[in-house]
Amino acid sequence: MSKPNFEQTLEDILEKNLPQEELAEVKRLLYGRELDFLFLPKWNGNQDLDVQGYDMGGSITEELRPPRIVRVGLIQHSIVLPTTEPLKKQRNALHLKIQKYVDYAATCGVNLLCLQEAWAMPFAFCTREKYPWCEFAEDAENGPTVILMSELAQRHGMVIICPILERDSANGDTLWNTSVVIEKDGTVIGKHRKNHIPRVGDFNESTYYMEGNTGHPVFETSFGRVAINICYGRHHPQNWMMFGLNGAEIVFNPSATTSHTSEPLWSIEARNAAIANSYYTCAINRVGTEQFPNEFTSGDGAPAHHDFGHFYGSSYITAPDGTRTPGLSRSKDGLLVCELDLNLCRQMKDFWCLRMTQRLDLYARELNEYVQNNLIPQQKHMKQQEKDSKKQ
Amino acid sequence: MSKPNFEQTLEDILEKNLPQEELAEVKRLLYGRELDFLFLPKWNGNQDLDVQGYDMGGSITEELRPPRIVRVGLIQHSIVLPTTEPLKKQRNALHLKIQKYVDYAATCGVNLLCLQEAWAMPFAFCTREKYPWCEFAEDAENGPTVILMSELAQRHGMVIICPILERDSANGDTLWNTSVVIEKDGTVIGKHRKNHIPRVGDFNESTYYMEGNTGHPVFETSFGRVAINICYGRHHPQNWMMFGLNGAEIVFNPSATTSHTSEPLWSIEARNAAIANSYYTCAINRVGTEQFPNEFTSGDGAPAHHDFGHFYGSSYITAPDGTRTPGLSRSKDGLLVCELDLNLCRQMKDFWCLRMTQRLDLYARELNEYVQNNLIPQQKHMKQQEKDSKKQ
Repeated sequence: MSKPNFEQTLEDILEKNLPQEELAEVKRLLYGRELDFLFLPKWNGNQDLDVQGYDMGGSITEELRPPRIVRVGLIQHSIVLPTTEPLKKQRNALHLKIQKYVDYAATCGVNLLCLQEAWAMPFAFCTREKYPWCEFAEDAENGPTVILMSELAQRHGMVIICPILERDSANGDTLWNTSVVIEKDGTVIGKHRKNHIPRVGDFNESTYYMEGNTGHPVFETSFGRVAINICYGRHHPQNWMMFGLNGAEIVFNPSATTSHTSEPLWSIEARNAAIANSYYTCAINRVGTEQFPNEFTSGDGAPAHHDFGHFYGSSYITAPDGTRTPGLSRSKDGLLVCELDLNLCRQMKDFWCLRMTQRLDLYARELNEYVQNNLIPQQKHMKQQEKDSKKQ
Repeated sequence: MSKPNFEQTLEDILEKNLPQEELAEVKRLLYGRELDFLFLPKWNGNQDLDVQGYDMGGSITEELRPPRIVRVGLIQHSIVLPTTEPLKKQRNALHLKIQKYVDYAATCGVNLLCLQEAWAMPFAFCTREKYPWCEFAEDAENGPTVILMSELAQRHGMVIICPILERDSANGDTLWNTSVVIEKDGTVIGKHRKNHIPRVGDFNESTYYMEGNTGHPVFETSFGRVAINICYGRHHPQNWMMFGLNGAEIVFNPSATTSHTSEPLWSIEARNAAIANSYYTCAINRVGTEQFPNEFTSGDGAPAHHDFGHFYGSSYITAPDGTRTPGLSRSKDGLLVCELDLNLCRQMKDFWCLRMTQRLDLYARELNEYVQNNLIPQQKHMKQQEKDSKKQ
């Protein structure tokens, strides 16, 4: 198997090779409705940044309710310095780079911005080493990364979702994988802790932190009701579901995932969640290959090595009708800007009726029985079924 | 918007236009692992049948458990006669055509076969007319379609999933949308009734039948533990989930869905379910455009018309690791044959740990609270969250 060329996205390959008419049909099948581009100011920074802007469209103009238009921005990026540099230098370099991206996102009119998982550090959980990496953890209200983002949120009047490695000093110095929600006035209005923790491939995150204890909060912000399904939680449809039941209109999925582990699944899960729950989903993945000083093994029989594999970016947004944007670059930092009408969420509930036909009482009952009985599976034959249905 | 050319599948367009290396990468991104072809005997019937065979692979050879290899077959097809013909002629013509396909599937070594939703009739629910269409409904044990399939199951030693419109004469002549499970000795071992009924576009099925009362049964057959998620149920992740919790290794999704309504979503939902539940999913869609004698409207402001739109086939199978087959034809009848190792289900549970990290107790509790309270959404701020987490 030859190594993938991450310089090209799927969309690049299709656009380069397909005749116009067939390209249009392939895009319809793969992405849904055709999207208009947004006109965005030019990026003038030094960094090679993939900037893409789309108008998601798809909503109708209602007579009795005005449109609720917001601009969402997603930032994906690589680390800046080698992981062997002093931690403070590593973090400062990331802060500096991302600050420029946030300032630029503001010029693009972004109201609601989300960064990638644990964005102010390398994704060091592959190493299984506690130090120095645990030092990157910081307080969810007063840590340096949240303070920086709080300043930027206030400066730009922007809601920012800031995923960090959290140090919970008030509770036994516990670590959590957390996303902090900052209002446009700079106030931290809440946080969510990652609900599902992976033990797959080099994702040894259960070595560092436990399953979150914040449930499924939805945050009423100045720009819509938002929730955060962190990384591996995207494989869990119930996680997406509960955010939907709690009223989310946009669910962000800040992630860090590698090509070998998940790239063929990446386009499926966040998009399925948007369809099933009639809300917008925003999937963000980190970029690049991170090298670590000490070698480690991956439990797959291969020799010890120093890197986690390639984080393939490809961040994208899906509308409640299942239409999605192309993905950002697979190798470069990027900013994806999307103009959305939040009214489309309720319009899709009216159209597809998925909430109305969801039969939650049935699932609450069956799931409870399943959990309480430690599973007596429903595996039975017709005669038994008929007895049951006559009882009802 | 130009009308799609249903003669070409997505895969046709990609294979025709992409250079070899880029084609391989596009296929990896869109489908996962590369699949080997199965060698199948030639189809000699008159009907133009799209026959495709794949070895799904992906499993490892375990030391303490032998492989559990089965061949699954999916049949997609159009109706035979115009809907204006006498009902008995219409049904007989379908019986005759499908019987030939089943006989051929047997020569391909198929152990476990599934047909499309309500396969022995036109999908007349767009009309909202009760007669003559309700006459197609038949008994789940003694109806002519089940009797035919029972004979074929016995003749070929094949398990057959036979979706019908069910007439429940013993219970007030109720109609259900049902799939009957027939063992390889011809015995009807059970049935499942469609759990989620659409009210979208021309899918006026709630005019004809109600939400099923059979829960989420999994059928222990000679060729693995199977369940059936009928059509619109594929939009409901909880439906897929409960079949998984009840032990399903293969979940069939017999469907009837049209291009305009769902084609860009088709590749997402059944595939997502395979990933999330570590089982095989088999999505089957009917083929062709069905004309009805009386005109009807679609609630979309368009003029009255006589057809439901184009059923686009595209049946496909997904493995528990997310790898999927190409789709069958978008315009022709087809048989998809896949050789699977059922052991891959448990292997993927061990690899991804999605069952282990599922936190069902959390969801049972939250879902129950949601249903009992008629929703008090979890929308709160940090101070409240901290109070809650200290309580735990």
